[in-house]
Amino acid sequence: MLESRKVFLVNAVLNYFSSLNPITPGFIQEIEKNLQPILVKKNKYILSPIDNNDDVFFVVSGLVRGFIKDDGKEITTWISLGNEFIGAIQHPDENIQPSIEYLQALENSELVPMPRTFINKLYSSHQETNVIGRKILALQYHAASERSILARIPSAERRYEKFLELNSFDVSKVPLRCIASYLGMRLETLSRIRSRLVKELV
Amino acid sequence: MLESRKVFLVNAVLNYFSSLNPITPGFIQEIEKNLQPILVKKNKYILSPIDNNDDVFFVVSGLVRGFIKDDGKEITTWISLGNEFIGAIQHPDENIQPSIEYLQALENSELVPMPRTFINKLYSSHQETNVIGRKILALQYHAASERSILARIPSAERRYEKFLELNSFDVSKVPLRCIASYLGMRLETLSRIRSRLVKELV
Repeated sequence: MLESRKVFLVNAVLNYFSSLNPITPGFIQEIEKNLQPILVKKNKYILSPIDNNDDVFFVVSGLVRGFIKDDGKEITTWISLGNEFIGAIQHPDENIQPSIEYLQALENSELVPMPRTFINKLYSSHQETNVIGRKILALQYHAASERSILARIPSAERRYEKFLELNSFDVSKVPLRCIASYLGMRLETLSRIRSRLVKELV
Repeated sequence: MLESRKVFLVNAVLNYFSSLNPITPGFIQEIEKNLQPILVKKNKYILSPIDNNDDVFFVVSGLVRGFIKDDGKEITTWISLGNEFIGAIQHPDENIQPSIEYLQALENSELVPMPRTFINKLYSSHQETNVIGRKILALQYHAASERSILARIPSAERRYEKFLELNSFDVSKVPLRCIASYLGMRLETLSRIRSRLVKELV
């Protein structure tokens, strides 16, 4: 990756932070010194259960999903189109363990990894990090609560309608088989529901 | 409610906060001046969709669940045995709207409501609130992520096993029909799975 592209990607993180709260020169310096952007090619894993769950990631561009395997079958737990932080589930007070989730790039994706230990240092050394962290966690908590409610709706059709209503991301940018997996239905069921809804609109 | 009990309940909130971060005398004073504990009788609603989603609640004692209605049927979205903050889903950056969740006491419950507007004032006036808020939101984000993953496991039996593994709360203290609703299965299915597991252990 070109050095100028790396600078651009780290700046994208800084812009995101400063949209949440003013940041100080010392904070900016720490970020610029410590973060190393990465490019993850389409279909490659960013994290899998053989890896320690050391980092969260800011997604600048691309498409990323989280999934777990249950009985050998992949279940998509969330999907990200970028401009947000993502990460595998991790209890805040427990030691970092191997991830139980897989993180996978569905398109070539540019990410900025941020080690959890580094974030914890920033919380101590730069007060504004607590405001920024609180705002990011409030957004993540809201999104996870929506995912949790969505997954509990028993009827596949109402689940899809609720999904559209929540409008968490642009459906047209995500492969249908991923959306089907995220909504806990077979691809054929999702296609049938979608064509029925289109017919009702005509 | 006796005045001495009210003092005890507000102190429970302060103890919880100070377990997360040191709190200042000014912060303590704001809390003591502004919070009014309530007792909610068994089966009564704490919040329903006719109410504005103005408050979060610290549960000191009792048993509380969140649920939504889908097609006239109640779906339990979470269960709390106390010593934590609960609330209906609310986007952090959007105006406060009527709740989409019901909050219901399943036992007589002692709660300390905390208005969202008051919390936002504390974030500005007392820096330590940001550290406390961040730590609470990290716990809530983790719990919501677990709920979201749990609800996506297709097999009822593996869903129950995962639920036991996550160990989010003491199963023996919650009515079985609530656990069944939380796990998205009929009460008979849950009873059958439980007796099968007991037999395997004998």
